[in-house]
Amino acid sequence: MATSTVLVTGGAGFIGANVTRSLLEDGHTVVVLDDLSGGSIHNVPDDALFRQGSACDPAVVDGLFAEFRFDYVFHLAAYAAEGLSHFIKRYNYINNVLGSVTLINAAVNAGTVRCFVFTSSIAVYGANQVPMSEDLVPSPEDPYGIAKLAVEQELRVTHEMFGLPYIVFRPHNVYGEYQNIGDRYRNVIGIFMNQALRGEPFTIFGDGCQVRAFTHISDVAPVLARSVTNPAAYNGTFNIGGDTVYTLNALARATADAMGVPLRVTHLPARNEVRRAYANHEKVRKVFGITGDEVPLEEGLAAMAAWVRRQGPREPSVFEAVEVRRNLPPSWLAVLPDAH
Amino acid sequence: MATSTVLVTGGAGFIGANVTRSLLEDGHTVVVLDDLSGGSIHNVPDDALFRQGSACDPAVVDGLFAEFRFDYVFHLAAYAAEGLSHFIKRYNYINNVLGSVTLINAAVNAGTVRCFVFTSSIAVYGANQVPMSEDLVPSPEDPYGIAKLAVEQELRVTHEMFGLPYIVFRPHNVYGEYQNIGDRYRNVIGIFMNQALRGEPFTIFGDGCQVRAFTHISDVAPVLARSVTNPAAYNGTFNIGGDTVYTLNALARATADAMGVPLRVTHLPARNEVRRAYANHEKVRKVFGITGDEVPLEEGLAAMAAWVRRQGPREPSVFEAVEVRRNLPPSWLAVLPDAH
Repeated sequence: MATSTVLVTGGAGFIGANVTRSLLEDGHTVVVLDDLSGGSIHNVPDDALFRQGSACDPAVVDGLFAEFRFDYVFHLAAYAAEGLSHFIKRYNYINNVLGSVTLINAAVNAGTVRCFVFTSSIAVYGANQVPMSEDLVPSPEDPYGIAKLAVEQELRVTHEMFGLPYIVFRPHNVYGEYQNIGDRYRNVIGIFMNQALRGEPFTIFGDGCQVRAFTHISDVAPVLARSVTNPAAYNGTFNIGGDTVYTLNALARATADAMGVPLRVTHLPARNEVRRAYANHEKVRKVFGITGDEVPLEEGLAAMAAWVRRQGPREPSVFEAVEVRRNLPPSWLAVLPDAH
Repeated sequence: MATSTVLVTGGAGFIGANVTRSLLEDGHTVVVLDDLSGGSIHNVPDDALFRQGSACDPAVVDGLFAEFRFDYVFHLAAYAAEGLSHFIKRYNYINNVLGSVTLINAAVNAGTVRCFVFTSSIAVYGANQVPMSEDLVPSPEDPYGIAKLAVEQELRVTHEMFGLPYIVFRPHNVYGEYQNIGDRYRNVIGIFMNQALRGEPFTIFGDGCQVRAFTHISDVAPVLARSVTNPAAYNGTFNIGGDTVYTLNALARATADAMGVPLRVTHLPARNEVRRAYANHEKVRKVFGITGDEVPLEEGLAAMAAWVRRQGPREPSVFEAVEVRRNLPPSWLAVLPDAH
């Protein structure tokens, strides 16, 4: 594509910070919108324009679209905590649905946006649908997955009604540099690495035999950034991520090795989560020519571990505005300010 | 059921006012929560307790659950305008999703609610899925249908996570007494009758050959009210409504007759809407022993017309907070305050 002006929401967050770097490398003007609720200003490269604010606030979003003439929108801002989303339903829909339609409205009203790229999640599939492929009927098992699916449907009907092109990606279990390792509710590799830095045992819900396919961010961010130059991708939905599955126990072993610490694991009571999650990547391979599985786990973990060691440990954050406490995992309940 | 304490949200609205009456007839204590944005205080029977407020406001909802010990929740509050929902996405998700999860949270936290009854819509099915039956894969075509589907999914995952039982109804094209005839964006029969009272021609989008099956409220409200006594209905989803289909042109003819006016129709430019919508009712017939099609159209129209004549004409309201004007039907655009 010719040099364009691009909005990246959530650009101070993990995937956003990496997509922003890919876009800058390709010579684009990048405007980052982020409320810094999960991301860090230190993740935003100096070459990007930064605006602090929430995608849920129409005044902020409309102001941004008045200030810039965006060719592309990468909507990556989200609060991506599947397990916690049961207990923060309102927060989930405000952040993940209202924020998205605020941006979709603005993109329609602007009339300049040539493609709207959205990061959904394999959480839309739900349980017992493996390998997850894009032609399966989604059956999300948690409010986070329901919210992501609603936004996918929004993009479809917005395209039909207003002609706004879109691309939906469903990445899964992405890890790597710029990830928030201080969020106790998500990003298992970040949690393990932070525990390693703090000299704590790794915590695993249940027996650790649940299975995931992990993906290094360098297999994902450039594909997202360049997707808008690929007409075959328009109005399509793509799984993206690794093919190789690991149990959480095997992941813990590999992460301990990458961090150079002995393996110690505390098994917490099992929580309500999808036991086996892995996806089919034929479609992304066909349209983008990539597999999303180039970087072996050991290599990716080593790269992330080097970055994490430079950052140092983080005090894990506590999500205090829990809306429902019933059935909250005990380890999450115990850290609430008034739990005792 | 023994006499219970029941919350009816949207109880000043059309379906809510009728369900409230059915519940009162069965001897229950009924608390109506309504923000009166679409409903009218005059629709609330004297025997019901009324609280003005929005289901979207956690303080209002939590206050209500602190004041009463609810056995059942009938969540009927919604802004049900499929066609307009494309242009008011934020408003749609705030009212139809956030309001619902605020109530679901409260019901889970209370721990006393034995069943949560929710009125969804056949808008979840989308186009080209007729006859609509509950085992079809939903593919909503508008933000209203997406929001309703998200809440259906919320009830499913809330039941799995917290054990809250639910019943989902998907009524369609319901008409009758206590319907708001002053909403220009929805309720075609109410719009026709109001136009008749005002001496105006009926307005139809497109050629009037779009097909719908209309349902008198007396075929729906008692079934909803008594559904919670039927264990076979729990955690189920049910279409409910008429089997007999009419074109809008035929409906206009019948409505003119019921109102005793000559038939005059103005055809407006077609809008983006599902052309043929009618549903299969085998499941509701099997579980509830009813068809939802007892009251013939002429009889139902006569009953509604008598009520409408007693109410008198209404000045059609204008939804001023439109978020997107692009592709708004010209007749809706023209009435916006700053359209000229």
